[in-house]
Amino acid sequence: MTAVRSHTTNILSVSGTLNKDQCGPCANSAAVTWSATPAGALRPVDLCCYHHHHHIIIIIMAPAGAKKGILERLDAGEIVVGDGGFVFALEKRGYVKAGPWTPEAAAEHPEAVRQLHREFLRAGSNVMQTFTFYASDDKLENRGHTQRFTGQQINEAACDLAKEVANEGDALVAGGVSQTPSYLSCKSENDVKAIFKKQIDVFVKKDVDFLIAEYFEHVEEAEWAVQVLKTTGKPVAATLCIGPEGDLNGVSPGDCAVRLVKAGAQIVGINCHFDPETCVKTVKLMKEGVEKAGLKAHYMSQPLAYHTPDCNCQGFIDLPEFPFSLEPRILTRWDMQKYAREAYNAGIRYIGGCCGFEPYHVRALAEELAPERGFLPAGSEKHGNWGSGLEMHTKPWVRARARRDYWEKLKPASGRPFCPSMAMPDGWGVTKGHADLMQQKEATSQEQLKALFDKANKTH
Amino acid sequence: MTAVRSHTTNILSVSGTLNKDQCGPCANSAAVTWSATPAGALRPVDLCCYHHHHHIIIIIMAPAGAKKGILERLDAGEIVVGDGGFVFALEKRGYVKAGPWTPEAAAEHPEAVRQLHREFLRAGSNVMQTFTFYASDDKLENRGHTQRFTGQQINEAACDLAKEVANEGDALVAGGVSQTPSYLSCKSENDVKAIFKKQIDVFVKKDVDFLIAEYFEHVEEAEWAVQVLKTTGKPVAATLCIGPEGDLNGVSPGDCAVRLVKAGAQIVGINCHFDPETCVKTVKLMKEGVEKAGLKAHYMSQPLAYHTPDCNCQGFIDLPEFPFSLEPRILTRWDMQKYAREAYNAGIRYIGGCCGFEPYHVRALAEELAPERGFLPAGSEKHGNWGSGLEMHTKPWVRARARRDYWEKLKPASGRPFCPSMAMPDGWGVTKGHADLMQQKEATSQEQLKALFDKANKTH
Amino acid sequence: MTAVRSHTTNILSVSGTLNKDQCGPCANSAAVTWSATPAGALRPVDLCCYHHHHHIIIIIMAPAGAKKGILERLDAGEIVVGDGGFVFALEKRGYVKAGPWTPEAAAEHPEAVRQLHREFLRAGSNVMQTFTFYASDDKLENRGHTQRFTGQQINEAACDLAKEVANEGDALVAGGVSQTPSYLSCKSENDVKAIFKKQIDVFVKKDVDFLIAEYFEHVEEAEWAVQVLKTTGKPVAATLCIGPEGDLNGVSPGDCAVRLVKAGAQIVGINCHFDPETCVKTVKLMKEGVEKAGLKAHYMSQPLAYHTPDCNCQGFIDLPEFPFSLEPRILTRWDMQKYAREAYNAGIRYIGGCCGFEPYHVRALAEELAPERGFLPAGSEKHGNWGSGLEMHTKPWVRARARRDYWEKLKPASGRPFCPSMAMPDGWGVTKGHADLMQQKEATSQEQLKALFDKANKTH
Amino acid sequence: MTAVRSHTTNILSVSGTLNKDQCGPCANSAAVTWSATPAGALRPVDLCCYHHHHHIIIIIMAPAGAKKGILERLDAGEIVVGDGGFVFALEKRGYVKAGPWTPEAAAEHPEAVRQLHREFLRAGSNVMQTFTFYASDDKLENRGHTQRFTGQQINEAACDLAKEVANEGDALVAGGVSQTPSYLSCKSENDVKAIFKKQIDVFVKKDVDFLIAEYFEHVEEAEWAVQVLKTTGKPVAATLCIGPEGDLNGVSPGDCAVRLVKAGAQIVGINCHFDPETCVKTVKLMKEGVEKAGLKAHYMSQPLAYHTPDCNCQGFIDLPEFPFSLEPRILTRWDMQKYAREAYNAGIRYIGGCCGFEPYHVRALAEELAPERGFLPAGSEKHGNWGSGLEMHTKPWVRARARRDYWEKLKPASGRPFCPSMAMPDGWGVTKGHADLMQQKEATSQEQLKALFDKANKTH
Repeated sequence: MTAVRSHTTNILSVSGTLNKDQCGPCANSAAVTWSATPAGALRPVDLCCYHHHHHIIIIIMAPAGAKKGILERLDAGEIVVGDGGFVFALEKRGYVKAGPWTPEAAAEHPEAVRQLHREFLRAGSNVMQTFTFYASDDKLENRGHTQRFTGQQINEAACDLAKEVANEGDALVAGGVSQTPSYLSCKSENDVKAIFKKQIDVFVKKDVDFLIAEYFEHVEEAEWAVQVLKTTGKPVAATLCIGPEGDLNGVSPGDCAVRLVKAGAQIVGINCHFDPETCVKTVKLMKEGVEKAGLKAHYMSQPLAYHTPDCNCQGFIDLPEFPFSLEPRILTRWDMQKYAREAYNAGIRYIGGCCGFEPYHVRALAEELAPERGFLPAGSEKHGNWGSGLEMHTKPWVRARARRDYWEKLKPASGRPFCPSMAMPDGWGVTKGHADLMQQKEATSQEQLKALFDKANKTH
Repeated sequence: MTAVRSHTTNILSVSGTLNKDQCGPCANSAAVTWSATPAGALRPVDLCCYHHHHHIIIIIMAPAGAKKGILERLDAGEIVVGDGGFVFALEKRGYVKAGPWTPEAAAEHPEAVRQLHREFLRAGSNVMQTFTFYASDDKLENRGHTQRFTGQQINEAACDLAKEVANEGDALVAGGVSQTPSYLSCKSENDVKAIFKKQIDVFVKKDVDFLIAEYFEHVEEAEWAVQVLKTTGKPVAATLCIGPEGDLNGVSPGDCAVRLVKAGAQIVGINCHFDPETCVKTVKLMKEGVEKAGLKAHYMSQPLAYHTPDCNCQGFIDLPEFPFSLEPRILTRWDMQKYAREAYNAGIRYIGGCCGFEPYHVRALAEELAPERGFLPAGSEKHGNWGSGLEMHTKPWVRARARRDYWEKLKPASGRPFCPSMAMPDGWGVTKGHADLMQQKEATSQEQLKALFDKANKTH
Repeated sequence: MTAVRSHTTNILSVSGTLNKDQCGPCANSAAVTWSATPAGALRPVDLCCYHHHHHIIIIIMAPAGAKKGILERLDAGEIVVGDGGFVFALEKRGYVKAGPWTPEAAAEHPEAVRQLHREFLRAGSNVMQTFTFYASDDKLENRGHTQRFTGQQINEAACDLAKEVANEGDALVAGGVSQTPSYLSCKSENDVKAIFKKQIDVFVKKDVDFLIAEYFEHVEEAEWAVQVLKTTGKPVAATLCIGPEGDLNGVSPGDCAVRLVKAGAQIVGINCHFDPETCVKTVKLMKEGVEKAGLKAHYMSQPLAYHTPDCNCQGFIDLPEFPFSLEPRILTRWDMQKYAREAYNAGIRYIGGCCGFEPYHVRALAEELAPERGFLPAGSEKHGNWGSGLEMHTKPWVRARARRDYWEKLKPASGRPFCPSMAMPDGWGVTKGHADLMQQKEATSQEQLKALFDKANKTH
Repeated sequence: MTAVRSHTTNILSVSGTLNKDQCGPCANSAAVTWSATPAGALRPVDLCCYHHHHHIIIIIMAPAGAKKGILERLDAGEIVVGDGGFVFALEKRGYVKAGPWTPEAAAEHPEAVRQLHREFLRAGSNVMQTFTFYASDDKLENRGHTQRFTGQQINEAACDLAKEVANEGDALVAGGVSQTPSYLSCKSENDVKAIFKKQIDVFVKKDVDFLIAEYFEHVEEAEWAVQVLKTTGKPVAATLCIGPEGDLNGVSPGDCAVRLVKAGAQIVGINCHFDPETCVKTVKLMKEGVEKAGLKAHYMSQPLAYHTPDCNCQGFIDLPEFPFSLEPRILTRWDMQKYAREAYNAGIRYIGGCCGFEPYHVRALAEELAPERGFLPAGSEKHGNWGSGLEMHTKPWVRARARRDYWEKLKPASGRPFCPSMAMPDGWGVTKGHADLMQQKEATSQEQLKALFDKANKTH
């Protein structure tokens, strides 16, 4: 049983008394009155609080008993905080290669993957998703990329890491599958399902808590994935990487959601490709569709941590900045608090992130929703609410920024006066079935590249 | 002896023959011809190369013998790649609190600090700087911040971590001291020097390779620090966090550099507070000053990873976005390659970073300077030069971005059309000696905060 | 019969011979071959051409016979170039007051109004619209604005000025009516129609060539206007100031257009409130609606000369910059050429402008469409096509800009790094019928203003 | 004696009584008390004022006696409001060709030039500068540009027009000369002075009130011009088009000013090439130089109406947007009020404008300085102070903008999210004496153009 500590500005009404001995940081404080947190929202924890100035210190003890499952939590109206995307975060740290985007680091560099899991857990994530994105055999072999580890080795290592860290706190393990090159290359339903089956065999063997079919651009492929996942008997979540215009064949978000629920998904939503504002908008359309069809589901969103007001239907992939110059688009922690609130208000209860999310982004979600959840994440130990930590800054004009009003109103400058604020997306208007999208095992040849460069130069 | 592997696009001319058995990734390639890398630039390594398409695989063996010291390297004309700043990187990961900015995580969460050291090492850093920023006792106790660990415990833990990781590769350990609240509060020279002495005692006990006095806004305090550091007999580097206008008392960069060299620093330069362009410009002024005075020194730069064309003399601290909305200003990897080249051309040979640097930023420095150094960092295993990894991307129009020309010309959009591109810096025009800057042990009171908020609202 | 002269870069293929005596500017050139211009596109003119470098000089003689009417022209497939808006242009010149926006200058300062007509004629306009915007009695008396001239005096003076200048070239006179405060204040159909009737009596008396009902936000009021205009027997054009979302009651552009055609308008389209891109898009929707209903009409567009990608349904009125800080949004001449081409491609043949248009903007329309029309406007005497006049600039790097390629690709900077690129529109979500929109004769009182300021401060 | 009428918000304290008969707009108001305006600042006028709401109506009668000369005014501490630039304003209206920038319209289209003079007079200008920019014979013949009128004809026509309009109000006539192609082509001092002499002969014949030598990039040529101008016995003003870095040979603004004063100029300053902020800054440097040298002078500024924070030493000529895409940089009327205040505070008393100024920009100068001058310009009849005219707008949220606070704080958006906010200036680093800058009579040949285009493409 691990004890973690958190700070916050008085967002919780507390009363009661507390022995100062229980709390290291409170050594110099008198015992204070405290109370239960908002009824129902809090799992069994001990609170240690004192009023020092206007801060409150809370000690959260990890729950003593067995963890509640994903559906138990959602059915009870709890908020589930998701984690962030691993491929982008680990690319910046030096363990994932942009282009193939494959997760061999789970086997090659387990210490790096484990550390990122821990940081998300500490930030408040209730889900440790296995780092198995694009870990299907057909993807791992794609485009001349020889691997030192088999798909099975990678998938198993990823499960072990997720489980190890999930056990350090109140998190569940989710096994994830995603879209395949085989589907894009027009392979048969059986071929594609066989790909999913191979990954899922690992998840069953490692006994993950639930399954996620994520990052699908075509609802048809997502349906196939859900059908395979359902064979395990575990809860199934399914997310598409689409915007309000629908999937790449033009199927609307509402219709997509209905098809996924009918295929057996208990949780549906959106991940990746668009910014939080767009994702929440799209999940709302999904919810409307499901409710109109007289069906029932839980909803989730795992958007990018990049502003993408200028995207077309294929999302940030088509932005000229993808993937190596997206920096100016990164969301601030305050943008994230806004997202968490909007997602909550839209009825979404599984709220997480995808590419671009760093641990502090997830922490911002957990901090925004602390009043509803009744507690702060462990990582808030190192974060003053709405910048209150700046009260300790050396310069007085920076101390003057220690307030919500300041950060909520600020329009951050980019320091890039030679750059535009919006971009014209690329994208050649093709999708599954088009020759340009046939995937190949061999590396792209020089001739193929030359043809691509020429075509790109013409479209600009 | 550790073996690391790297990819690159043929930037090195190689010849000779190589047995494919030596190289895992080359399993399917025939033995190829290879040669020595640019004479003199390379330390004893083994190269394993093959032409697959236009890639070259290189295996770099860690040097067998004892490491060369910092001055040996610089005297020999070698490039030393520095690391990035720890407080900002670890703040994002959840282990440092913005405001106090203190490094207690070295003792509290060693696994997180160790992992960041490893990532910088893997990215190409030749220096593991101890995570002892603001670890002076007067700072640790500042503003009501009670610590669970003593300053000595933190400083010792930081040394152990840096040393452990440095031994995993070709890196030296540098012990760092930085500006003190005592100086800002007008304490005596003796008092301030006693603060430095306490930190340095740990560095001597832990036998670090050299010392850095960094992040000084007033050259006078930096001189005091250098004088204390010189008593150890170890090489001393000294950096100020100033721009072309000079230190906060208006002493020019050239004069500052002369004073630091006369105080005993063998390496002088700039760190933090300004973007790479500004820092390189300022180091140039330092170099001119030193040379004009008939003195000699080595030069270093450790700038921010944030664009700051709109700063005043006190740097990014005064920008309204500091420290929680700086995201749109983050440099891309291509910006970093430009910086590395400009620093090199300016005669700077110790080239690193500070706040905002992530491991991939350091890797970009090492990749840009690979032709001069003769090798790539381990982390380039997961990075195609100038985006060549995108050759393996699913979408053809993204594969069309796998080229230097594309990324060098791109002006990245911020996706923030409601935000300006530049900001008006705050800053109340005061420095050391002004009552507003007296530091206090107690937390800022509510009354003090109110006065600050009112003053800030008036200046906007 | 007036002779006007124009320059252009060889966009017209010409042949034949010409006596140099006929052409002043050609004094030093030999007689050259010339030919007829593109068949059918040109009205009876004489051409005087010579090859000096790559320029061609054209003398266009005004047509000898009677002018063709507006419907004759459009039925024959000709392009009719409209003029620009008078209230904004004359506000900048000091003759119209922003706020009331009334046209009393027609009576007070005829020389200024006459000069602006002449400049639009010279720029290529085929229509001199009477400067009678907001010249209804109810508007002239609105909000405490006492006039020195009666509505009838202003309307008559405006007709005289338009006619005088129209007779100096190939232009028609159009009498214009626009939306009324009476409608907004929920007066009866009869009351509103009586307002229009009073203005139209003047137009009939002065025998204008055709009538325009323009700047209507509610299609119902526009229908009433068209019905009154139709009683004159003159051709009637009708434009709304709406965007793709439809009128302020939500009637779609297609439905609006159908209602206007059914009411008797032979020409329908959009004016004011939105930028060219949005207006062309909206007229396309109108055209689709009319064609779907099996009706027939001609189409016109008279957009703003301001970029408004960030408008809501009520257009630029709601932008925070309206009306005194719109400068950064002003379109360049190259933006205008793009607009002319897009309008033409969309099947629009009456192509003009509204607020923000200066004479050079209209000239840009006429220059873009010169190949279709077979001639250039008189004002092109002082304008090299696509910047070719810069060949005569002092600095060589400015001469290097004398080419289409340069200007078409240029993304102009605003020189305003502290400003955003987009704005959040104001607008309180109310329209006709809401108490906030009741118009009053008396000036706004201080109390009323205070209430407005308070409400505005709350919505920001 | 002409009577003009103006509105303003109560910026003037007035008392006394007035017969309502004297004032048309006041028909419904009772006689009100009134008083003299601030002592000394006002020339003989009659004031008619009444309090309607918070407005004051003022009737300004043109002065009865002879006009005071330029030096009399400045010596008395009066503010002299200059006019705006003619070439840019008339280019937009269709009468000047960008590239040659010559003023033949004075002879060809006198009605257009007269109207612009009138608008500036009405806006508050005290100087009608003859439209003789670049009207030297060598410039008129430059680059194959054959004129229908001789230089003498143009210069004479321009004098007549300026004088005619000046006599309609309280304005003086200034004859202007500017830099010559001869100087740039390294002709002798005698040759260059002969050029100036020819223009000045006309000014003497037409008896202008004073002379301006303006738009010089090299102080040496300006000195020659001043020396020629001084031979007339008339007051001489001299302005350079340089920034804080000095003239194109690097002579500092202070040194330039001293040389001009020593050559005989009584008024020195800056015109064109830079925005108001930069021009005021440069005139300040001139003033410091003159005062340091123990000399005396009056100061003037006639900046651009374009924001140019991104210019190099040669000003807006080198900006990529020059001259056909400068629209997003145009200053608002509020920017102009800021400029007028800053110029006044810097001790500048001759405050006018140059390229980009429209009449409403000059009016803004006169409105900002109305408290000091004691009266408003005639054009303010159609302009409510700080947007107060909006009190009469139809929409209530636009009425809510009728206040200074709103407009002063507004950061106007450009509506151009695909454009940067700053530009990289062109400019090939050459000045007088370099072969690239030799001017020629013949038009630029195709071969010459090709060479320029190639060079330009390489520098981008």
